[in-house]
Amino acid sequence: MELKQLLERQSLAIKLARKAGELIIKSSGELILVDEKCSFADLVTESDKAVEKMVFDEIKKQYPNDKFIGEESANDTDEWSDDPTWIIDPIDGTTNFVHNFPFCCISIGFTYKRIPCLGVIYHPHLDHLYSAVKGHGAKLTKPNGETIDIRVRPCPSLSKALVVAEIGSQRDEAKRECVFRNLESIAWASHGIRSLGSAALNICAVASGQLDAFFEFGPYIWDICAGVVIAMEAGGHVCDTTGGKLDLQGRRFIFASSEKLAKEIADKLVVQMEFKNGEK
Amino acid sequence: MELKQLLERQSLAIKLARKAGELIIKSSGELILVDEKCSFADLVTESDKAVEKMVFDEIKKQYPNDKFIGEESANDTDEWSDDPTWIIDPIDGTTNFVHNFPFCCISIGFTYKRIPCLGVIYHPHLDHLYSAVKGHGAKLTKPNGETIDIRVRPCPSLSKALVVAEIGSQRDEAKRECVFRNLESIAWASHGIRSLGSAALNICAVASGQLDAFFEFGPYIWDICAGVVIAMEAGGHVCDTTGGKLDLQGRRFIFASSEKLAKEIADKLVVQMEFKNGEK
Repeated sequence: MELKQLLERQSLAIKLARKAGELIIKSSGELILVDEKCSFADLVTESDKAVEKMVFDEIKKQYPNDKFIGEESANDTDEWSDDPTWIIDPIDGTTNFVHNFPFCCISIGFTYKRIPCLGVIYHPHLDHLYSAVKGHGAKLTKPNGETIDIRVRPCPSLSKALVVAEIGSQRDEAKRECVFRNLESIAWASHGIRSLGSAALNICAVASGQLDAFFEFGPYIWDICAGVVIAMEAGGHVCDTTGGKLDLQGRRFIFASSEKLAKEIADKLVVQMEFKNGEK
Repeated sequence: MELKQLLERQSLAIKLARKAGELIIKSSGELILVDEKCSFADLVTESDKAVEKMVFDEIKKQYPNDKFIGEESANDTDEWSDDPTWIIDPIDGTTNFVHNFPFCCISIGFTYKRIPCLGVIYHPHLDHLYSAVKGHGAKLTKPNGETIDIRVRPCPSLSKALVVAEIGSQRDEAKRECVFRNLESIAWASHGIRSLGSAALNICAVASGQLDAFFEFGPYIWDICAGVVIAMEAGGHVCDTTGGKLDLQGRRFIFASSEKLAKEIADKLVVQMEFKNGEK
């Protein structure tokens, strides 16, 4: 795909992310319906669905042949393929959103030939817009309109790292074992653990040098697709939780400021867990 | 102590909190020295010390007879007594500060007859100023200058709660057991766990209805003193991790939006831990 076509899609993604942000802010604190998905802690709201529909509809007008994968319509959307594909989480951090904890975002990713090549993540409460096109750097546009390059910060070792991790919303014994044994192992070997409740914003925090690494068992392709482009363009390293090559559908994810730090984290993860591909 | 005297002290505390915030923002990203205190994860910077000195010096000018307890000079400061006493954490969230993760604050508390009666907490990166005087409500002053009343949000039960908790910087086996067994127990019974790295800001998030409860084993009196006033004035319930009466020096803390939720959390804490009073 030509750069020009990617940049056009980036412009649209930014426009739609800001529009989605307005919807998110507007519906904060006036929730109509909260459904439980896979467990009592896995939530979806009318806002998630409304934002996803708005974004998909707008993209379809301009790119009728592009494919779509979205969190809220995952069972009805396209299979991930080599085609130009938009991969979207309308509200990443839904639990925060439901609780009025102002830390959530819309995450718009785009892949071509199964390679993530465009990512836009918008945090409406802070008016922070993160964006990257493969090969062209990662940027943050601030509330004052200024756009700056972002970059991971060097971290000498895990013992000096501040790591972000998520417990997630899955509630079974295998996940419990995986989450807590690993959290304990990483926490005690590092400066500490933060847990913010949005995979996409966790990635942006590491990409902009606020935190040193993020790992999670369980994130879906829509949670990380946009973030992966931002992560790599910010100079970071993404991989599977074993330290091997990242499978975007594998639901196992490490992003660290360097390959060395990512490997250190992978080595300290004492329980690995398998997920069925794309399973909801 | 008369209300007039408390309100005068509140005005000074707000002025100094904003001045401290300027120092914190100014020194973000230009750290001169990071010392390790009690463990490799327990950090102090020159900025912590500089902010504490500035605040103490300014208060002494106006209230030469008031007593002082501060995190960074804890070994040199006064014993906690019935006297009018300022209890200050110059930078709560030092690890975040060191890592340039923009989530830290100054916390200025004041006790008289050992009762917390004034609390000011300032988050300089967001320009959020939280403040409360005993008996007169809890307030948030926003960046646009508007001051609003804040209030905890009702939460029917722990199974619907979003809880904030901290791993802390102590690194020994007893603490490890206490932190992770309890985290696991609370996480699996609730909507989830957030971990932000500042006890004072955790309290403000619960007090303003963004999160439902906060618990921690290990916080010092300067981490929670200001917050306790804000918590109670926002309509919340504070107690010991057993559910009993809070000992401000006991280093065991629950703050929940209701007494019922606090008791539910206390009941789910499977490992209790004793701390020596005021031990550093």
